[in-house]
Amino acid sequence: MSRILSLVTGGSRGFGVAIVEEVLAKFQNSTIDFILYARPSTQGGLEKTKQLILSKSPKSTVSNICIDLSIVPEIEAKFMKSLENVDLSQYSKVLFFVNHGSLSYLEKIKDLKNFNEIQKDIDLNVTSVTVLTSLFLRKISTYGENQIEATLINTSSLCAIKPFDSWSVYCSGKAARDMLFQCIADEYKSNSKIKSLNYAPGPMDTDMQKQIREHTADESTRNYFIELKNSGKLVNANASASKLSNLLYENTFTSGAHIDYFDLK
Amino acid sequence: MSRILSLVTGGSRGFGVAIVEEVLAKFQNSTIDFILYARPSTQGGLEKTKQLILSKSPKSTVSNICIDLSIVPEIEAKFMKSLENVDLSQYSKVLFFVNHGSLSYLEKIKDLKNFNEIQKDIDLNVTSVTVLTSLFLRKISTYGENQIEATLINTSSLCAIKPFDSWSVYCSGKAARDMLFQCIADEYKSNSKIKSLNYAPGPMDTDMQKQIREHTADESTRNYFIELKNSGKLVNANASASKLSNLLYENTFTSGAHIDYFDLK
Repeated sequence: MSRILSLVTGGSRGFGVAIVEEVLAKFQNSTIDFILYARPSTQGGLEKTKQLILSKSPKSTVSNICIDLSIVPEIEAKFMKSLENVDLSQYSKVLFFVNHGSLSYLEKIKDLKNFNEIQKDIDLNVTSVTVLTSLFLRKISTYGENQIEATLINTSSLCAIKPFDSWSVYCSGKAARDMLFQCIADEYKSNSKIKSLNYAPGPMDTDMQKQIREHTADESTRNYFIELKNSGKLVNANASASKLSNLLYENTFTSGAHIDYFDLK
Repeated sequence: MSRILSLVTGGSRGFGVAIVEEVLAKFQNSTIDFILYARPSTQGGLEKTKQLILSKSPKSTVSNICIDLSIVPEIEAKFMKSLENVDLSQYSKVLFFVNHGSLSYLEKIKDLKNFNEIQKDIDLNVTSVTVLTSLFLRKISTYGENQIEATLINTSSLCAIKPFDSWSVYCSGKAARDMLFQCIADEYKSNSKIKSLNYAPGPMDTDMQKQIREHTADESTRNYFIELKNSGKLVNANASASKLSNLLYENTFTSGAHIDYFDLK
């Protein structure tokens, strides 16, 4: 039975948990080992995800890593350490779900304050993604050319390609992540084993949507999301993760593409 | 004679100086006051720009501000102070050229190191732009709705919309800036006096291009720029700034648009 390794940041809740469940469901013919990453304050959630995995797939191994991805020096040390004793060559495929992120500041640009907090937020949503993908690709490169099959998946958003009133910090962070993943695709265009994907999961019915409905400064943007909720149009996180898992399983998507939940059948 | 205020970051050299010259040339029927911003280490260049302005337009006032835009707390304090005694209501138009930036790291993603330096670089190229535009729009908002006519111009790049091998940090930073300026346009869509513009000036024959030719890790990307230089296809900085000045003078562009030098006649 082939083995797959899945790394999942933001693995303690929401879409991260849905990814874990749907990847397990789709790649039933493989054993999937996991390395899950989340903030120290969400350690309980991470442990629940681990138990969920082991209950569905007793042969899997699961490592939980508590890491604050807004602290750049910490990322480098802890992420490297998490991969230190991992032999990627034993896996038929490695999936890296770069899924963490925060909603940032739901204020109009002129009303932004706390710029030191915004800087930390950009470190969490943008800088950390550069660091993580760089270290991951460096690890892969130690095995020599074309030895490891890997896909890096960015949890993207419609906000990466479309501006929203009161969401500037979030939108620009998502745009930066999308472009980074396009650059990954470009740098590996002659290596078909390394692919990247920007997947926009749609407006999901998670805690994040609750924050959006309660805190978005702009009334029309806020009402848009309240209406989505009230009319039952929010996307189920597992339905979205299931479509993502299908994409990865079929593996026919173009590397570097931005694919939205609503683009898929 | 009407007065215009122009704020220019990265005002000590290269495209910043070309902007100053071409704005002066295009808006000849107005007196233009300037506030120029650049790193402390380029103070000499800033002083030269000031003298250039005063030699061409003796009625202009010019303030030079030395500011390190990679240090977030410094930006807030110094930029606010630079605007403290400025009465925007005396100007028929305010132009804010957000023109500073660095080339970042011309390495493949897997070869990136010095993540603390990359973090600082993202602060310079992305975080600072959020801080500056926020403070600028906040200052405008103190005059009440629709009182000030202002355009914010981001010095963008083809890299904001197209990935380049070995340029990931630069590309993702430019993508983030473009999206921020799209969000500005969106937040002011009901106020025709506030506009934003993402202007990609083309590959200009400046010091930055020299760095590109010498330091880009990927051979084919490097050769592309060497060939541009050798075949005389690099763009003259003043020719590019002149097209930008025309755009601003005619003022018919769509707010938030990404407009490339090569798109223009």
